[in-house]
Amino acid sequence: MRASQLPLFTSKDDPKDAQVASHRLLSRAGFIRKQGSGLYVYMPFGDMVHRKIEQIVREEMNRFGGIEVTLPVITPAELWQESGRWDLMGKEMMRMQDRHEVGYALGPTHEEAMTDLARSFLQSYKQLPVNLYQIGRKYRDEIRPRYGLIRCREFVMKDAYSFHVDDASLDETYQKMREAYRAIFERCGLKTIPVEADSGNMGGSGSEEFMVASQIGEETLLLCSDEKCGYRSNQEKTAFIENPKKHGSTEPTNRGISPSADAAVEFETGAAKTIEEVSKLTGSEPRNFIKAVIFEDKENIFLCFIQGDRDLSEIKMKNLAGATEYWPAGEETIKALTGAEPGYAGPQGLKVKDGDTVAKKTLRIFFDRHLKGRSGLIAGANKTGFHTKNVAEGRDFQSGEGHDLIVSHAGDICPQCKKAELTETRGIEVGHIFKLGKKYSQKMNLSVLDPNGKPLTPTMGCYGIGVGRTMATSVEQNHDERGIIWHRNLSPFVVYLVSLAKGEAEVAFVDKLYATLTAQGISVYLDDRDERAGVKFNDAELVGFPFIVTVGKKTLESGKIELKLRRSGEKLEVSEAELIGKIQSL
Amino acid sequence: MRASQLPLFTSKDDPKDAQVASHRLLSRAGFIRKQGSGLYVYMPFGDMVHRKIEQIVREEMNRFGGIEVTLPVITPAELWQESGRWDLMGKEMMRMQDRHEVGYALGPTHEEAMTDLARSFLQSYKQLPVNLYQIGRKYRDEIRPRYGLIRCREFVMKDAYSFHVDDASLDETYQKMREAYRAIFERCGLKTIPVEADSGNMGGSGSEEFMVASQIGEETLLLCSDEKCGYRSNQEKTAFIENPKKHGSTEPTNRGISPSADAAVEFETGAAKTIEEVSKLTGSEPRNFIKAVIFEDKENIFLCFIQGDRDLSEIKMKNLAGATEYWPAGEETIKALTGAEPGYAGPQGLKVKDGDTVAKKTLRIFFDRHLKGRSGLIAGANKTGFHTKNVAEGRDFQSGEGHDLIVSHAGDICPQCKKAELTETRGIEVGHIFKLGKKYSQKMNLSVLDPNGKPLTPTMGCYGIGVGRTMATSVEQNHDERGIIWHRNLSPFVVYLVSLAKGEAEVAFVDKLYATLTAQGISVYLDDRDERAGVKFNDAELVGFPFIVTVGKKTLESGKIELKLRRSGEKLEVSEAELIGKIQSL
Repeated sequence: MRASQLPLFTSKDDPKDAQVASHRLLSRAGFIRKQGSGLYVYMPFGDMVHRKIEQIVREEMNRFGGIEVTLPVITPAELWQESGRWDLMGKEMMRMQDRHEVGYALGPTHEEAMTDLARSFLQSYKQLPVNLYQIGRKYRDEIRPRYGLIRCREFVMKDAYSFHVDDASLDETYQKMREAYRAIFERCGLKTIPVEADSGNMGGSGSEEFMVASQIGEETLLLCSDEKCGYRSNQEKTAFIENPKKHGSTEPTNRGISPSADAAVEFETGAAKTIEEVSKLTGSEPRNFIKAVIFEDKENIFLCFIQGDRDLSEIKMKNLAGATEYWPAGEETIKALTGAEPGYAGPQGLKVKDGDTVAKKTLRIFFDRHLKGRSGLIAGANKTGFHTKNVAEGRDFQSGEGHDLIVSHAGDICPQCKKAELTETRGIEVGHIFKLGKKYSQKMNLSVLDPNGKPLTPTMGCYGIGVGRTMATSVEQNHDERGIIWHRNLSPFVVYLVSLAKGEAEVAFVDKLYATLTAQGISVYLDDRDERAGVKFNDAELVGFPFIVTVGKKTLESGKIELKLRRSGEKLEVSEAELIGKIQSL
Repeated sequence: MRASQLPLFTSKDDPKDAQVASHRLLSRAGFIRKQGSGLYVYMPFGDMVHRKIEQIVREEMNRFGGIEVTLPVITPAELWQESGRWDLMGKEMMRMQDRHEVGYALGPTHEEAMTDLARSFLQSYKQLPVNLYQIGRKYRDEIRPRYGLIRCREFVMKDAYSFHVDDASLDETYQKMREAYRAIFERCGLKTIPVEADSGNMGGSGSEEFMVASQIGEETLLLCSDEKCGYRSNQEKTAFIENPKKHGSTEPTNRGISPSADAAVEFETGAAKTIEEVSKLTGSEPRNFIKAVIFEDKENIFLCFIQGDRDLSEIKMKNLAGATEYWPAGEETIKALTGAEPGYAGPQGLKVKDGDTVAKKTLRIFFDRHLKGRSGLIAGANKTGFHTKNVAEGRDFQSGEGHDLIVSHAGDICPQCKKAELTETRGIEVGHIFKLGKKYSQKMNLSVLDPNGKPLTPTMGCYGIGVGRTMATSVEQNHDERGIIWHRNLSPFVVYLVSLAKGEAEVAFVDKLYATLTAQGISVYLDDRDERAGVKFNDAELVGFPFIVTVGKKTLESGKIELKLRRSGEKLEVSEAELIGKIQSL
């Protein structure tokens, strides 16, 4: 292709709102252009990269047993109502009504639509497993779209949904998808970190995210510092194990706090209310406090107790409680629960117990497992202006085995090897595979006949890859101050041929070289513009094809063609045959 | 590909709402599946055909100078407001609001979005012409979606938009697109009728539609009965020329009506009000009446006079008036205009004239050109209960040269050769090319610098093809009672290999044949299901790949493979080499 046929859309200026390299470079290099908040046009080169990624995804999905279909982008509200997600999905889901005031979602995901499709043709266990995928537009009404293609509102995803007779079959496909994803990112030249992940709103039992490490990532990853262990997890999902260094002992029942035989005793704390304030007042460190965090939903109150120096993980609480929409408990609820103003809840001396009805809702009490066996603790006294000290688990309250409720951080202990410390990094999610279980198949009455002619509810998996994000994160990982450095498999063209030809003989030489390379199956972009050499070189570096070949007057004199490797910056003077060999071998 | 990997989704039953062959057969053969009103899933085979058409479109567009980009499907309302079409597009345009209550359209077309893109990078006349296209989803909120893929609400279109310094350049690209479209439909094996078309809401000066003749078509085409003339036009656009047979004379000024020297005279018609009723009363045929049709919009009243036996073409009126949203004139307006109840408007003795202000609106009067020179006519007397007879143009009113305002039909005279009669056929539009002119570039301030450094407003063209409609109409044209008959270029696979293999040797033979054909670059779908031969043959005919190859016990005995040509039904017994030759030669 020649620049005279397919123009460059490069620009000297960064977009005003560009905060990250991929947004800045993809815009300046003319691959994308903004058309609205979180809405991007794919310009010719961008479109080519996008389609190359799509094709890699398609080939690998097909290789690992995927079957391609294409679903409508707009999904009838009634399908979302069947699954219960019409109300659940909140403002992130874009919605519309047709002329008959029938509601539709611009699908952010297609569990419902794909389950609806599956139930339209699945009749027998013999048809299972089946793994249907599509590559199509998705919508998410981000509050604050940013980072170009990384957090936009309209984007292309590959989403696959598999249906199985049992968990063993699901696991088999899940493992195939893990392989497929590794193969896809490998072919795209993208280094990803697969991590254990929370399965969130999607429901289900197991999930893995494919993360690209990046300072601008919105996800926090915790990695075991011992490479042999290799544990990698999304912070959301990482089980919390307290590091014994924090309290100078490895004994779980006595973590540096002397057990106290003294009875629990109330004391007045006056204006001091927060753990920080009471800690200052008493000289006891926050770790020796019991923190109470209280949420409620339409039917329940969730009262959570954790140790005072840590944060409650709402995701863990939510998963434990099976809650979907919930909010911090209101003052009235807290007063009904503790008999005191907010800020004085404690597990000891509480007049209500787990399962009781409080303020017309069911009280559910959750203890973090790290409270078990602790003593000498300070907690709210369930009395305004008072706290209780010398509180001991097992005597003043019963935590039982407790749950994993605390947000883990770097410096905590790896929950896999249970020895090494965790380290923290930021990541961008580019892929996600889930075991969904029967959530959708049950709610939407997807059923097949088993070998005995009895109805069987298939179990499901789902598997997503962000195509635009793969493109953007590839640029995040592969660029320098001069521009993008495309992996050969993604690059719009393999060779950027800079023509400095002036006279007829030079033009003929360039044309011949262009034809020769093309005939060898090498895709060439010929910059035949009437521009200065500097402009052409700058654009060549900016758009970032792997090989920059320069031909001018010098070439005809010396017979040597200049080849520059975009990634290393290495420059070579080669013959035509050497050039072809070099390009084909790398 | 094997049926064990890529299952068939065939069905014995037609969808309940299927009225046409393509809807029925694409559904039964498992190419599409309905997911909502006017919303279809492309199943694996359907998806493959769809992508093959896309690829043909892409290749031909590229060959004829198109540059591919991809725009967001949702278009900010502000772009539509700039062009004035946000209000104009009516209920057919699907709309939504984001969480900030900003409006968006689910683009039914992308003139605004593409003009916005163009103005973001076009600076100089040197960058022109440029022809940008995309292949993507479009939305149209049909009142009554039907005919499967032919009239649905979400569909894929290729839409291209070109920008030019002048009309000569626009015409050059327009002609290239005509060629490209001919090439595309040729490669798809689709017989289309290119017709002159109205450019409707799109604005502009020239347009051609590519129609597939079909009984279910929603467009009426008028074709010259003289093939040498070759005139083909959408009825909307066809200029009306009255057939002299209608009135027994070819003289335009005296069409069988005796000129009358008698003065025009009012007569009472009492309860008779319509042309039909007054015709009965007077014995004068409707052709000798003047029909008045009155519309109004926010600023104007449009009073149209045509001869009494024909219908006014609203499209012609609308284009002539430059009207967009208009409605039949209300009673009050008509009274203010004629001084009479509705039903008594006539051109003679009207107290107001073209350009006058009537009921605070500007009156515009249009005469059909066939009224020129007519006499002995009957018209409303602008007086309730009265008509006027012996009305003569040139004496009692002045039509001037008049306009083309009447709907043309079969039997009228061809406006091109002006000799032969027109015949009528129904058609489905699959492609449409327009000369848009400067409507969008002006309204949206798209401007480039001309060679003298002065601002120049580019003129535009636009060019659309319905990908799903191409698929559906291809089935309308190519099917029989047993199923679809795909053109080789669109067929998901070239060969449907029916395996009747039982023993090991037979299975090995089938596998070897499958491998051999595949190695020859022939795409094969191997039906290796555990089903009866009859089921496989029926499905093979239904899904409609060009070659049906059957291998079973007999094949091993005779060494002859059975080849059936799907289109002709011809059956051949051939060797493997002959088989390959036959498939490759056809």
